[in-house]
Amino acid sequence: MAIERVTVVGLGLIGSSIARAAKARLPQVTVTGHDASADVREEARTLGLCDTIADDPAASVLGSDLVILAVPVGRMADAAAAIAPGLKPDAIISDVGSSKAGVADALAKALPDHVVIPAHPVAGTENSGPAAGFATLFEGRWCIVTPGASAPADAVAALSGFWEALGAKVDTMDAAHHDMVLAVTSHLPHLIAYTIVGTASELEEVTESEVIKYSAGGFRDFTRIAASDPVMWRDVFLANKDAVLETLQRFNEDLTALQQAIRRGDGAKLEDWFTRTRAIRRSIIEQGQDDAAPDFGRRH
Amino acid sequence: MAIERVTVVGLGLIGSSIARAAKARLPQVTVTGHDASADVREEARTLGLCDTIADDPAASVLGSDLVILAVPVGRMADAAAAIAPGLKPDAIISDVGSSKAGVADALAKALPDHVVIPAHPVAGTENSGPAAGFATLFEGRWCIVTPGASAPADAVAALSGFWEALGAKVDTMDAAHHDMVLAVTSHLPHLIAYTIVGTASELEEVTESEVIKYSAGGFRDFTRIAASDPVMWRDVFLANKDAVLETLQRFNEDLTALQQAIRRGDGAKLEDWFTRTRAIRRSIIEQGQDDAAPDFGRRH
Ligand SMILES: NC(=O)c1ccc[n+]([C@@H]2O[C@H](COP(=O)([O-])OP(=O)(O)OC[C@H]3O[C@@H](n4cnc5c(N)ncnc54)[C@H](OP(=O)(O)O)[C@@H]3O)[C@@H](O)[C@H]2O)c1
Ligand SMILES: NC(=O)c1ccc[n+]([C@@H]2O[C@H](COP(=O)([O-])OP(=O)(O)OC[C@H]3O[C@@H](n4cnc5c(N)ncnc54)[C@H](OP(=O)(O)O)[C@@H]3O)[C@@H](O)[C@H]2O)c1
Repeated sequence: MAIERVTVVGLGLIGSSIARAAKARLPQVTVTGHDASADVREEARTLGLCDTIADDPAASVLGSDLVILAVPVGRMADAAAAIAPGLKPDAIISDVGSSKAGVADALAKALPDHVVIPAHPVAGTENSGPAAGFATLFEGRWCIVTPGASAPADAVAALSGFWEALGAKVDTMDAAHHDMVLAVTSHLPHLIAYTIVGTASELEEVTESEVIKYSAGGFRDFTRIAASDPVMWRDVFLANKDAVLETLQRFNEDLTALQQAIRRGDGAKLEDWFTRTRAIRRSIIEQGQDDAAPDFGRRH
Repeated sequence: MAIERVTVVGLGLIGSSIARAAKARLPQVTVTGHDASADVREEARTLGLCDTIADDPAASVLGSDLVILAVPVGRMADAAAAIAPGLKPDAIISDVGSSKAGVADALAKALPDHVVIPAHPVAGTENSGPAAGFATLFEGRWCIVTPGASAPADAVAALSGFWEALGAKVDTMDAAHHDMVLAVTSHLPHLIAYTIVGTASELEEVTESEVIKYSAGGFRDFTRIAASDPVMWRDVFLANKDAVLETLQRFNEDLTALQQAIRRGDGAKLEDWFTRTRAIRRSIIEQGQDDAAPDFGRRH
């Protein structure tokens, strides 16, 4: 299956990065864009993100071989319904949502007669909107494809090939497992970061201005994640509720154990725990999933 | 009070950065170093960190106007006792420990007849040891000085001037308040990061290799902090137990509230919380306490 025409629906951080990467790396592919927001469409035109920006969702997918929905998880059903009238019968419909089981259901329901193959590129920044995207976002990052049992193998291969062409590495797994893996590696970290930043800004004993001034002691790291888009993350937690609550329970058990160790002055337990957690960062760096420079390579 | 001779005891990340910054910015000052570890002293000699490296702690402080203890919080009392025989009567003894009330007590007890002015530069990386230090570590960062009621004003001014000369901005506050502020901005973030990294590496449903592969979704940020020195952090939690447990309790209350919102599908509460946490990052960047580039300016 050759992918010659691609439509990206939703031109924020992820959608605009797909458009940029496709223009940079796949000059033979025609990219059409659509966004529900007229302001975003206007900005996308000014930035020259796509070959064409369509005002109408159904018109944006006419003749497209691959349509990628890059809207918040809670908007996938609407976006799918809006493009349905324009889709080619053999078009591949995919998405980039951060949770997969719920999105897979919503897309299957909205597009029962189409080839739907959900996916999730594990890459991003704390910023959103069309200006925040960049062509190299997916380079060296993993894109997880979660085909249902009835997905045609050639369509899965074509979608995987598209992501590889954008610089990503591709893995396939089922949607439920994706949601458990991402609950640990992404959703729980965001929830914890949002929590602690909220906690810190509402203490009576310590002013917000002190929290800001002395944030270089560790806190500032959490503020990056906690600056991520509120709507996107609201949708992720609602959609991946069960897996998030399950991993949160494990986290709470571990936190209680460390809390007890501190209360009892059990230094050996603390040191042992802190020693075990060191190894994992080395592996992340060795596998090219983070910058090896101290402090993420921040300028000091 | 002129500071012409400085001794740094403990030549790891912080101690070696002080030595480097002093050599770079204060060429008229003589810097002597000492470390309990013969290997570290050897490495410090090879790196040329100080004008002299002394094998004996008491000998290292002979004639020094300012002695800075840069050892783990739990070793401050030992380090102070070991230098006591060599101290000039009017020497200023300071430290860089991450918690202050306990260290202040320990130093006052070990050196009852000396001018002790505890301090804490809020700057660091996840690495430790003499090779990890660098001369610009303190530039634009805050150093918190916590003089006791009996500290002579000229000695406090001299110590503050020294830190300013290394590029830091100086604040003074009492030790108890320091410990509450740092519990929020540094100790709790470290505890949470250590916890979640441990939780993630011990789930049955998700393998460690999956956690590593897909860490770019947010988890990798926490692994940096959780790669920090286990002995240093064990000591900090033991020394600042009360403030850490108090802030941890607030965090737990907030986390329970968000957990309930997820369980009940209360999207409005989640979105509202996530919106409020955004503002604080903007302030941190505006005040020069973090890199404005997306994703900490990581290379992608
Ligand atoms: N940010 C990350 O790090 C990241 C990483 C991997 C995957 N993802 C996933 O990628 C998707 C997009 O995230 P993002 O960060 O790119 O968000 P974003 O920057 O906020 O962009 C989303 C865009 O979609 C538009 N939109 C909303 N509903 C629409 C609809 N029904 N039809 C067409 N356009 C619509 C939005 O317009 P309005 O603003 O006017 O609503 C907005 O311009 C989400 O599902 C998210 O879970 C994000
Ligand atoms: N790392 C940070 O981000 C940071 C930031 C601000 C403040 N601090 C504080 O700075 C202090 C030092 O931390 P660091 O990160 O520089 O640690 P580090 O890199 O591990 O260095 C500490 C050095 O002190 C030596 N030492 C231990 N006990 C000693 C003693 N009694 N006499 C002389 N030397 C001794 C150690 O030798 P051995 O290894 O042989 O024990 C080691 O070489 C700690 O109190 C910490 O709380 C750290």
